[in-house]
Amino acid sequence: MAGNSFGQLFRITTFGESHGVAIGVIIDGCPAQLDIDMDFIQSELDKRKPGQSKITTQRKESDTVQILSGVFEGKSTGTPIALLIPNEDQRSKDYGHNVDVYRPSHADYVYDAKYGIRDHRGGGRSSARETAARVAAGAIAKLFLKQQGIEIFAHVTSVGTIDAPNLESNDLSALLTIREENIVRCADPATANEMIEFIDSVRKDGDTVGGKIGCVIKGCPAGLGEPVFDKLHADLGKAMLSINAVHGFEYGSGFAGSELRGSQHNDIPQPKAADSNVFKTTTNYAGGILGGISNGMDITFKVAFKPVATIMHNQQTINAAGEVSEIKGKGRHDPCVVPRAVVIVEAMAALVLADQFLRNKASVI
Amino acid sequence: MAGNSFGQLFRITTFGESHGVAIGVIIDGCPAQLDIDMDFIQSELDKRKPGQSKITTQRKESDTVQILSGVFEGKSTGTPIALLIPNEDQRSKDYGHNVDVYRPSHADYVYDAKYGIRDHRGGGRSSARETAARVAAGAIAKLFLKQQGIEIFAHVTSVGTIDAPNLESNDLSALLTIREENIVRCADPATANEMIEFIDSVRKDGDTVGGKIGCVIKGCPAGLGEPVFDKLHADLGKAMLSINAVHGFEYGSGFAGSELRGSQHNDIPQPKAADSNVFKTTTNYAGGILGGISNGMDITFKVAFKPVATIMHNQQTINAAGEVSEIKGKGRHDPCVVPRAVVIVEAMAALVLADQFLRNKASVI
Amino acid sequence: MAGNSFGQLFRITTFGESHGVAIGVIIDGCPAQLDIDMDFIQSELDKRKPGQSKITTQRKESDTVQILSGVFEGKSTGTPIALLIPNEDQRSKDYGHNVDVYRPSHADYVYDAKYGIRDHRGGGRSSARETAARVAAGAIAKLFLKQQGIEIFAHVTSVGTIDAPNLESNDLSALLTIREENIVRCADPATANEMIEFIDSVRKDGDTVGGKIGCVIKGCPAGLGEPVFDKLHADLGKAMLSINAVHGFEYGSGFAGSELRGSQHNDIPQPKAADSNVFKTTTNYAGGILGGISNGMDITFKVAFKPVATIMHNQQTINAAGEVSEIKGKGRHDPCVVPRAVVIVEAMAALVLADQFLRNKASVI
Amino acid sequence: MAGNSFGQLFRITTFGESHGVAIGVIIDGCPAQLDIDMDFIQSELDKRKPGQSKITTQRKESDTVQILSGVFEGKSTGTPIALLIPNEDQRSKDYGHNVDVYRPSHADYVYDAKYGIRDHRGGGRSSARETAARVAAGAIAKLFLKQQGIEIFAHVTSVGTIDAPNLESNDLSALLTIREENIVRCADPATANEMIEFIDSVRKDGDTVGGKIGCVIKGCPAGLGEPVFDKLHADLGKAMLSINAVHGFEYGSGFAGSELRGSQHNDIPQPKAADSNVFKTTTNYAGGILGGISNGMDITFKVAFKPVATIMHNQQTINAAGEVSEIKGKGRHDPCVVPRAVVIVEAMAALVLADQFLRNKASVI
Repeated sequence: MAGNSFGQLFRITTFGESHGVAIGVIIDGCPAQLDIDMDFIQSELDKRKPGQSKITTQRKESDTVQILSGVFEGKSTGTPIALLIPNEDQRSKDYGHNVDVYRPSHADYVYDAKYGIRDHRGGGRSSARETAARVAAGAIAKLFLKQQGIEIFAHVTSVGTIDAPNLESNDLSALLTIREENIVRCADPATANEMIEFIDSVRKDGDTVGGKIGCVIKGCPAGLGEPVFDKLHADLGKAMLSINAVHGFEYGSGFAGSELRGSQHNDIPQPKAADSNVFKTTTNYAGGILGGISNGMDITFKVAFKPVATIMHNQQTINAAGEVSEIKGKGRHDPCVVPRAVVIVEAMAALVLADQFLRNKASVI
Repeated sequence: MAGNSFGQLFRITTFGESHGVAIGVIIDGCPAQLDIDMDFIQSELDKRKPGQSKITTQRKESDTVQILSGVFEGKSTGTPIALLIPNEDQRSKDYGHNVDVYRPSHADYVYDAKYGIRDHRGGGRSSARETAARVAAGAIAKLFLKQQGIEIFAHVTSVGTIDAPNLESNDLSALLTIREENIVRCADPATANEMIEFIDSVRKDGDTVGGKIGCVIKGCPAGLGEPVFDKLHADLGKAMLSINAVHGFEYGSGFAGSELRGSQHNDIPQPKAADSNVFKTTTNYAGGILGGISNGMDITFKVAFKPVATIMHNQQTINAAGEVSEIKGKGRHDPCVVPRAVVIVEAMAALVLADQFLRNKASVI
Repeated sequence: MAGNSFGQLFRITTFGESHGVAIGVIIDGCPAQLDIDMDFIQSELDKRKPGQSKITTQRKESDTVQILSGVFEGKSTGTPIALLIPNEDQRSKDYGHNVDVYRPSHADYVYDAKYGIRDHRGGGRSSARETAARVAAGAIAKLFLKQQGIEIFAHVTSVGTIDAPNLESNDLSALLTIREENIVRCADPATANEMIEFIDSVRKDGDTVGGKIGCVIKGCPAGLGEPVFDKLHADLGKAMLSINAVHGFEYGSGFAGSELRGSQHNDIPQPKAADSNVFKTTTNYAGGILGGISNGMDITFKVAFKPVATIMHNQQTINAAGEVSEIKGKGRHDPCVVPRAVVIVEAMAALVLADQFLRNKASVI
Repeated sequence: MAGNSFGQLFRITTFGESHGVAIGVIIDGCPAQLDIDMDFIQSELDKRKPGQSKITTQRKESDTVQILSGVFEGKSTGTPIALLIPNEDQRSKDYGHNVDVYRPSHADYVYDAKYGIRDHRGGGRSSARETAARVAAGAIAKLFLKQQGIEIFAHVTSVGTIDAPNLESNDLSALLTIREENIVRCADPATANEMIEFIDSVRKDGDTVGGKIGCVIKGCPAGLGEPVFDKLHADLGKAMLSINAVHGFEYGSGFAGSELRGSQHNDIPQPKAADSNVFKTTTNYAGGILGGISNGMDITFKVAFKPVATIMHNQQTINAAGEVSEIKGKGRHDPCVVPRAVVIVEAMAALVLADQFLRNKASVI
């Protein structure tokens, strides 16, 4: 109940602090006989790792993943898969100045308030470093989903007030190629350039900026999601909101949909083709989910990230005694988190889908 | 795992279909010795029940709650509290025309796809009638939270494109009085009138419209929420997204916050007064939550509802065979769900807070 | 976490006190499209109900079960099935003398110690009346298992020091007929007579006596049970130990097996017949379970019940102030609980098997 | 749901195979600010490790534990504690002869039946090596319980048909000293000698023998345990039955209690001394638990272990094709598992108590 596990049947438990020995994850419930492609897992981690480009933090971590259990001769055995990612560039001394002050809009204060003790080195457990464990586990979920024909694609749709146009392509592989060709991970190259330029200017200001990530899931069969509390979009929402810095989630028509009338918003079902059992609607305001259950259409959602709290400006704050203090703007900083968060969003989506896929198997015998 | 339970330590399980014998809820984990005020529970249900005003559905349900267990001489005993709400106005015949057609943007199709069977009477389990059980349970959570000094207040902030101004008062009792004086449940009387007029016009068009509900929680101590997956805002987000028709959730600065820079968005802590241990920041973009844990400031969030799918227009759709069919616009309809959903939002927030309150008790011994 | 739920995928939650309005159960996770035979459910409850014969308590309860949700046109829909059993013969006044004294070997004291409040009427929630809800839910689990070819049979193997010989028949239907022909529910008629005579003499002494119940499960496929903590026999053990008055559980060779050598205890696998994929061993010390997972052989276990604590003798005890008090032997009493507990043992076994059956579905895709 | 986690609030998840890279455990929910005594954890592991004496298996493993997270400056932080135990003496080649045959009374067959794949090296996940992870986690639970004044002591009470007399001492420290002075871990020295001699003779026969372990818990306050399904003894029973080779569990009067009459079995409460709020009964057939809730008396239970299946005799068996095969008696073997299992029993008991201690905190506010 201490909240370090996610999922019911496909369930992960993560551990580790930013500047401890290692971080890691146990995946319990991955079905047996799945091919575990370690290269793919590593390539996913590489998309999240720090130091990738000029617009991300310069912390150096290779994020090399090791497998400790649960895989035999390249296949999952049905037993827990443990993955370990040692921490390399710990540089805890950089954080010595944070021992007694609470960094603005960081979790320092609340950890002290909750636990009466705090691993102050680089944010300890509250650091987004924990998400590397999710990406590793999410990669295995993706391998499982791929086997079922389910594909997930996310990209950066906004940085500050710069918005990408809606995607026109349905070819996720092609979009992935485009996305990976630019360092901001936006599938629209023109917007990507604009975003990169903007983030770079923000970085030079010693400042940070927020952004949004959009995600689409293709190939999901109808029937995933449980109807009341564990609606598919409720689980997706929780998954996304559990990612560091996320402040908002919407699916399908989202916030904008609340301004519409029913006669505009209803998605009209299309008659089925003679050779198909697939459900289709003319529009997809529903975002592929009705009553919490997937309907077979594309699942779409969007996630909003606040700007990173660590900036290179001096800021007023308080210390543990409640007295005014000043925090210096120095060390490493990440001007915009969304380029690295794209793969985290995909990973969390994959974990939800894999879990609900297995849960759905028990619906009818 | 079939998703009809919510919460870990303060846990509810709901049951019942729209047109079955009854709906109800079991609350497991309510601490012993709590005064169970049945009048309060009923008064909460009265705020959600249908037929309250001209701008809500005309279905007649008194929603009279009965207590079956867990309370002895007016107090909770620590054993499961079972609450029952018999269904009165079932009128299943009204729904006979829905047996074979899938209503657009309703859950009919996905229930068939998932279960191969569907209680078509009034939407069965997918009906928002299920939320009455949540409101009853949420009322008990509110009684528990009140004992701890925690208060929750929600109201309608938008209907369609009509937005209420931000609340200026901090007096939740006063706001509640204002809110309950108008049938749309907006705490700004001028906006309320505008909203009511608009909903009434939409109703006359046989149409529906979406809206938004804002919520503030006062008196929450620092320390609630678990740091990784079960962040306080992630649990709140899941809770809200599990309510029928919700398409979006944001807390604190929300989606708009993603457009800001860190230097704008960081909340600067105030020095503590000599006689106080309370944490305060000059701004509250964080929405009272840092790193997933409450910091003692007001918790704020917003929820977006799509327009109700049942409209009084004829619509094209398909039948179970996949063929084109038409659904007639007749029967009862609810032009705008947000006035009745205000108390559902509060109830779900109360359930999350009560649960995280108990969970936090295990953080330090 | 308050412990009123059992099972993961096939999950029940019970509620209700001995002398409250009603007891009941919600079954969440019963697969859709199962035929729900209400007559069978009632017939199972009839085997547990009080007042069946001269050797059971004379409390009068028809234990008539009502269905509130989750079933449509005779079939499960995949939504929660709520079952209600109103309490009829409450006679709370009989228990007025227990308000301030702690009955020896009853739970009165510990409820006060834990909760600081106690529904003293007939033991409140600690009464074995709660097990009626389990029997009702277990009946539905049995219907599900029967569909899968799994059958469960329990009977009384000991009363005090009177032991029945081991069963020789493999025909569970025939054994059931024999068992139901005597009021002690032992499948060996000669032993049954001896047991009945003995219980009747104990009853006339105003005393009670313990006993044992043996259970066999046939038709269980290999593969049920999770390998580490949720071993099939560990779940069965917990299920049985959660039944009122149970003090011991053993499976397969049990306690006696701990006295043997490996060379005696190992079950030797038989070569498979050409036309069969069934695993068979010459002996079955394993009780059908290896490493926590069913192997396809008969699953066998035994459950020990202490004598009922309520006796018709005056006994010394203490009151809530800790002072010496005397409790009078009066009212109704149940001289031996095992005849009525046979169907409770079967019900709990059925719930475990149904749950592990569904869980196993996620092992391999 | 794949069953590699145990506990609700004090929750562990284990991973690792007998001959993989490492085994380990994550403890989620250990309260913050607990002193983590690594020497104590290691000393507990040393009591379980192989190769301790002539009467245990000769596999060489130092079982050196490493801490990866959750501890800062010697104290728990409230975040997940990850412990790693690398495997050293893997010698997988010893097990090459087991690839295609199913060892009698081992889990080989059922893993193949369940997963269609099996890590055959030393039993893979089904090996009792997994219990080292439990012992490490249990050591932390013991540190937590000690802080609360709760102590746990187990020892070997039977080997084959050799039974130790009941303990007369109440001084658990003294008993521990006596127990650790002999290699069979029986707190009665005379019986210990007899047991050791017997096990050694069994070892020379290339055979194995079962045994029993008794456990007593002192200092447990009244109120632990949840009243219906998660009764304290039900959780203890499940915990014990989840240990490899366990075939039976009883608490308090156990199986023998089922032969008694109520007038013999009822524990008579003693009047409370003027200066005490402690509940005492003249006898303790209840084993310290009434209605599933601790009453403050000593908690007592007993666990039965079958003889280890690996013997040094040639045995008939079948191969994966179902054909007759022979398995040679060679390699290392453990003639009697109970001396090393004493600390496993204690560890699992500690995990149950720590969990129920935290759960009980939510009973009353």
